[in-house]
Amino acid sequence: MALRDDGAAALDWVASYLERVRELPALAQVAPGDVRAALPASAPEHGEEFPAVLQDLDEILLPGITNWQSPRFFAYFSTTGSEPAILADLLAAGLNQVGILWRASPALQELEEVTLAWLAELLGLPDGWHGHLEQGASVATLGALAAAREAKPGHVLASEHAHSSVERACRLLGLELRKVPVDDEFRLRPEALELEGASAVVATVGTTSTTSVDPVAAVVERCASAGVWVHVDAAYAGSAMVCPELRWAFEGIEGVDSLVVNPHKWLLVTQGCSAFWTQRPEELRAAFSLVPEYLRTSDEVVSFSEYSVELGRGFRALKLWTVLRCYGREGLQEAIRKSIALAALFEGWVRDEPGWELCAPRPFSVVCFRREGSDQENEVLLERVNATGEAFLSGTRLNGRFVLRLATGNARQTEDDVGAAWEVLQRCAR
Amino acid sequence: MALRDDGAAALDWVASYLERVRELPALAQVAPGDVRAALPASAPEHGEEFPAVLQDLDEILLPGITNWQSPRFFAYFSTTGSEPAILADLLAAGLNQVGILWRASPALQELEEVTLAWLAELLGLPDGWHGHLEQGASVATLGALAAAREAKPGHVLASEHAHSSVERACRLLGLELRKVPVDDEFRLRPEALELEGASAVVATVGTTSTTSVDPVAAVVERCASAGVWVHVDAAYAGSAMVCPELRWAFEGIEGVDSLVVNPHKWLLVTQGCSAFWTQRPEELRAAFSLVPEYLRTSDEVVSFSEYSVELGRGFRALKLWTVLRCYGREGLQEAIRKSIALAALFEGWVRDEPGWELCAPRPFSVVCFRREGSDQENEVLLERVNATGEAFLSGTRLNGRFVLRLATGNARQTEDDVGAAWEVLQRCAR
Repeated sequence: MALRDDGAAALDWVASYLERVRELPALAQVAPGDVRAALPASAPEHGEEFPAVLQDLDEILLPGITNWQSPRFFAYFSTTGSEPAILADLLAAGLNQVGILWRASPALQELEEVTLAWLAELLGLPDGWHGHLEQGASVATLGALAAAREAKPGHVLASEHAHSSVERACRLLGLELRKVPVDDEFRLRPEALELEGASAVVATVGTTSTTSVDPVAAVVERCASAGVWVHVDAAYAGSAMVCPELRWAFEGIEGVDSLVVNPHKWLLVTQGCSAFWTQRPEELRAAFSLVPEYLRTSDEVVSFSEYSVELGRGFRALKLWTVLRCYGREGLQEAIRKSIALAALFEGWVRDEPGWELCAPRPFSVVCFRREGSDQENEVLLERVNATGEAFLSGTRLNGRFVLRLATGNARQTEDDVGAAWEVLQRCAR
Repeated sequence: MALRDDGAAALDWVASYLERVRELPALAQVAPGDVRAALPASAPEHGEEFPAVLQDLDEILLPGITNWQSPRFFAYFSTTGSEPAILADLLAAGLNQVGILWRASPALQELEEVTLAWLAELLGLPDGWHGHLEQGASVATLGALAAAREAKPGHVLASEHAHSSVERACRLLGLELRKVPVDDEFRLRPEALELEGASAVVATVGTTSTTSVDPVAAVVERCASAGVWVHVDAAYAGSAMVCPELRWAFEGIEGVDSLVVNPHKWLLVTQGCSAFWTQRPEELRAAFSLVPEYLRTSDEVVSFSEYSVELGRGFRALKLWTVLRCYGREGLQEAIRKSIALAALFEGWVRDEPGWELCAPRPFSVVCFRREGSDQENEVLLERVNATGEAFLSGTRLNGRFVLRLATGNARQTEDDVGAAWEVLQRCAR
């Protein structure tokens, strides 16, 4: 295989894709099974040339791609695989590092330490926390709760708006999860925490449905005296802490035991980059550490694999480092502020338009809203919008009612993109 | 950022790296802290140009890279990030898919289904198993044992040569692990299984220390009547089943409950691609499935996120598909057979040379051997070899004795590379 020639074709494919992604349907317009049916039943007997792969990528796979890179993608959380991150993924693939222990890739481990310290400083976290990268927040939260259980077994508390990964981690760990009620702005009510016999509280900074912010300082205060582990899930909103004016959401963060923030959500990094910190690395290590004979060395260095479900870790730090380098603090702040300004713009349009209503406060880049009418009318409206391919939004339920969500955050998004979403919403509502 | 220009530089970096990787030290020749000390303490305030990143990659990071892509890398398991896989990683980064549920990326989910069926056929597995990709075998084994616990709680049995991820998963799941003794060829002794009250047995096809093969058929036979889940960890050797002459190692596989094979180990795929199959998907789903409101849709499709710790999954299938396409069955068989031939060649040299001894049978591509003398002398020998940078080997302990391991498997390896390793071993032993 001619890496240079085939690589040039692959690079051109990616560049062209990003240039035209706005024109592609935001949500894939295929039916279940369409992609599968277009693929052969078996692998080829003999190797094929790489251009054949690119051709099938265009003809078979691309119609089945929901374009997360499209600025018309407003569902879930809007993400950006930025150019520096994409190229860092190429470099990481070329190096193919497997960080099972320090000597297996000193650069991987030490770059991960350094970039996590850089990111901690950018987000206003205290010095000296243990930080490493996980593939995603689900695995990070599993690790946090395993460490909490190690420190003190018991039940776990989280608001009814906490992410489903908390419930999944509890199920795996055999811990009871008790859901804590929220106030009228979807924030955990700290006075409702039943701390006796508890192992951990998970507070969310930026819940999935509404991006509400649990009161971390109050949770920390109550948990400190009870000896209960506080884990903060800031998978989405944590990235916004690069902007000092948003740090109110991290008030009390210096007192938490562990924290997860996903740079792959809102900090321009491609999928598979979740930052995990803890002030109590010994409990985390106690939950995971096992060094079998085939990995023993004389190196006096603790490996990240002793703090994590994973043994072999990829060179994820390379993309985080590349993004922090290529954007700098200033560039990251600009991206966050732009997303929030676009969400505020859309929020204003909804507020001012008769027949529409806002359904939750909007602290960051997600607007929850609905059209006057029944849940079913709103569900039909959402499906109709998404079927145009012109914009992709998702929905949720708040206080039993179905609502629409519009998430900004794609770095390529402009006012025109948000305006187009509003236009298609109004058109489909008529 | 000019993706095309910067991308051309990144691509050239990767191509040049692979061209010169044989000349780089196989094991990074740095001391702990060297890389960290060369990096600034904080992220930059303003964004930098991408070429500055490439320059630091060369000057700061590369000396701290252990070159897993080097054909002189013989440690752990020798892997290959092949050119098709590298370019597929670039494409996947450009698309930045997040497969949280079917509609979020129909192509991701359906390609994953299809490539897992392709791979199952290539490895001689029965039709119709549920298959999906995980980031690594540790997470896959965690899933398998969670499903086993769901089906029937109890203790877990595995040989003392099973991978440390089994013990880690048991610790997370709160399951007792009982180690089963092995025979004189490091294979689990099925008659020693205490099945009463057991949840699962983990049988390993290709253990980490010696690549020994537990007798799957005998384990399956004993477990079937006892209703005990059989999970097969074939993370390393499973890829070799593309060659029919090696399928003796999978005898009885049709009766197992779950199986993990890592294409990122020995099937030319870059890091982060572990294939997981189960015959009992309902138990797996029961262990994990949670569908929160913000992910409910009208699509009548089950998403892979209901079978896994992860919620958001990357487009890992793209690299597996690209590799299967570009190599075909024939190319994959050729790569496996070449690795084994090189290991056999080295094994012969050791056998024929006075003062050296073989320490375990060699079913695949890993040779366990030692120099006559004490453990300490062998440990010093290993460190001396690795300090040359000319080859990188790892060690383990068998029956209490320290032994060296040489693993072939890098697709760029030749007889000359294995000869160079033998030469440096003999030189350092003198």
